[in-house]
Amino acid sequence: MSENPIFHFNTEVRVRLPETDAMGIVFHGNFFTYLEVGRVDYLRNLELSDAARPIRDFDNVVVAAHLDFKSPARLDDCIRIDVRTREIRHSSFTFEFRLRNKSTNRVIADGYTTHCAVDGAFNPISVPDKFRETIGAFEQWDDAER
Amino acid sequence: MSENPIFHFNTEVRVRLPETDAMGIVFHGNFFTYLEVGRVDYLRNLELSDAARPIRDFDNVVVAAHLDFKSPARLDDCIRIDVRTREIRHSSFTFEFRLRNKSTNRVIADGYTTHCAVDGAFNPISVPDKFRETIGAFEQWDDAER
Amino acid sequence: MSENPIFHFNTEVRVRLPETDAMGIVFHGNFFTYLEVGRVDYLRNLELSDAARPIRDFDNVVVAAHLDFKSPARLDDCIRIDVRTREIRHSSFTFEFRLRNKSTNRVIADGYTTHCAVDGAFNPISVPDKFRETIGAFEQWDDAER
Amino acid sequence: MSENPIFHFNTEVRVRLPETDAMGIVFHGNFFTYLEVGRVDYLRNLELSDAARPIRDFDNVVVAAHLDFKSPARLDDCIRIDVRTREIRHSSFTFEFRLRNKSTNRVIADGYTTHCAVDGAFNPISVPDKFRETIGAFEQWDDAER
Repeated sequence: MSENPIFHFNTEVRVRLPETDAMGIVFHGNFFTYLEVGRVDYLRNLELSDAARPIRDFDNVVVAAHLDFKSPARLDDCIRIDVRTREIRHSSFTFEFRLRNKSTNRVIADGYTTHCAVDGAFNPISVPDKFRETIGAFEQWDDAER
Repeated sequence: MSENPIFHFNTEVRVRLPETDAMGIVFHGNFFTYLEVGRVDYLRNLELSDAARPIRDFDNVVVAAHLDFKSPARLDDCIRIDVRTREIRHSSFTFEFRLRNKSTNRVIADGYTTHCAVDGAFNPISVPDKFRETIGAFEQWDDAER
Repeated sequence: MSENPIFHFNTEVRVRLPETDAMGIVFHGNFFTYLEVGRVDYLRNLELSDAARPIRDFDNVVVAAHLDFKSPARLDDCIRIDVRTREIRHSSFTFEFRLRNKSTNRVIADGYTTHCAVDGAFNPISVPDKFRETIGAFEQWDDAER
Repeated sequence: MSENPIFHFNTEVRVRLPETDAMGIVFHGNFFTYLEVGRVDYLRNLELSDAARPIRDFDNVVVAAHLDFKSPARLDDCIRIDVRTREIRHSSFTFEFRLRNKSTNRVIADGYTTHCAVDGAFNPISVPDKFRETIGAFEQWDDAER
């Protein structure tokens, strides 16, 4: 996790019964579903997503996924998901997330997912310029960071 | 559910933590995943399944799914899944299931799923003869039932 | 399914990637999660739900679950979930659902779940009056039906 | 991931249809369910697990979860899950995993989960000696590492 990242986008989910487990809290693996919702909502807001696939103009695979868990989430909790793009490299790009309990503002988890742009045979391709530019503008990166 | 159906095939699953919910028992919708496991194992045993799709020679969609729940299942329970084919009609066919707790023999649930054979555009097709014959032989149907 | 049921409540969900499967459509078992969302939103609207459990004043178990599938749902589809209570008996009660694609209005599935009010040892209890009256008023049942 | 870790335990799972997604591969978040299966089977083999909860003698929460994905897994693939305990600290302990396609031996993913021993109020407690000793003996740690 970056130190004190600034998030310009957030969305939210409410915890559903099948996402909890017999320990009474959300099963840790299900938070990656919440990250998926956050990422798709973030990309939809930039018109980079479409119905057919999570990123409109190219396929991607997740190459790394990480979460640090700070406090449990429970049935019916509203979770605010902060989403940002941390960096875009030649073929890969990383989204960063922070999840908070909406009513207490307590941090539930933070972490990231790193993706690789791929062709139909799952070989890496370079990240298309339009994707890079749209996100760079939204995140207010100066040119050095893009 | 048929009255006193005879099952010639069974398989088993062990309840995983994310399949339970905050009520401390398996979420009812997750039993349809266990039926999927039972159906695929049943078809694999008849060499009617393959890696690419649940039924080797044609696509299918589920058109009805039903379960009656008799007793709860909990974390780490071993569940025995009895599977049979109840009938094969022109385009549709129905599998019947009974789930028992393996160590107590108590019935957890029983029910069925009805499937329709479809082409690539999701239009009904007639059930291929090989599928009909292989299952009829295994289930020991006489010709009137096939 | 009742013939031409009238629904006074609806809510919606958007299909998430992990709810789809390799057939390219929502896995049929995951629709029971959508029914759960519909049922909880329906009960919350009547102030019969709370954070701790799906029904505020008593525990319940699902005793039957049924869906008929009419057309597939795909990634990112918005699904409108119509919810009603069909009947409340001594210990059991049945919710009825219809799921439609929000942008095409095509029916995706309809069905029901039947629940039993239980005590802490999973023994049936009679459905509390407040639950019965609140729902009867919302559904505009006359006294004969309650 | 440690460099060239040696695994003394493995178990396996077969990919189920609802674990795949519309991209045709296993949804990345579902691999954390496979890690759960691996961890519970590892602990059961050491008689440290029981039916009531994943670790018999104390509760735990996951404080970090990480996976690096190397190649996709598909419907019906058999996945071999290698499991080891990497370290046990005062209150926390880390399991390490490697997932391989059983028929090709290709690595699918590797990663770890870190857990914290907690009391009923989710406060950290020290890891019980029996857990520490049983695992240290199985992993053939010398005393310096325990």
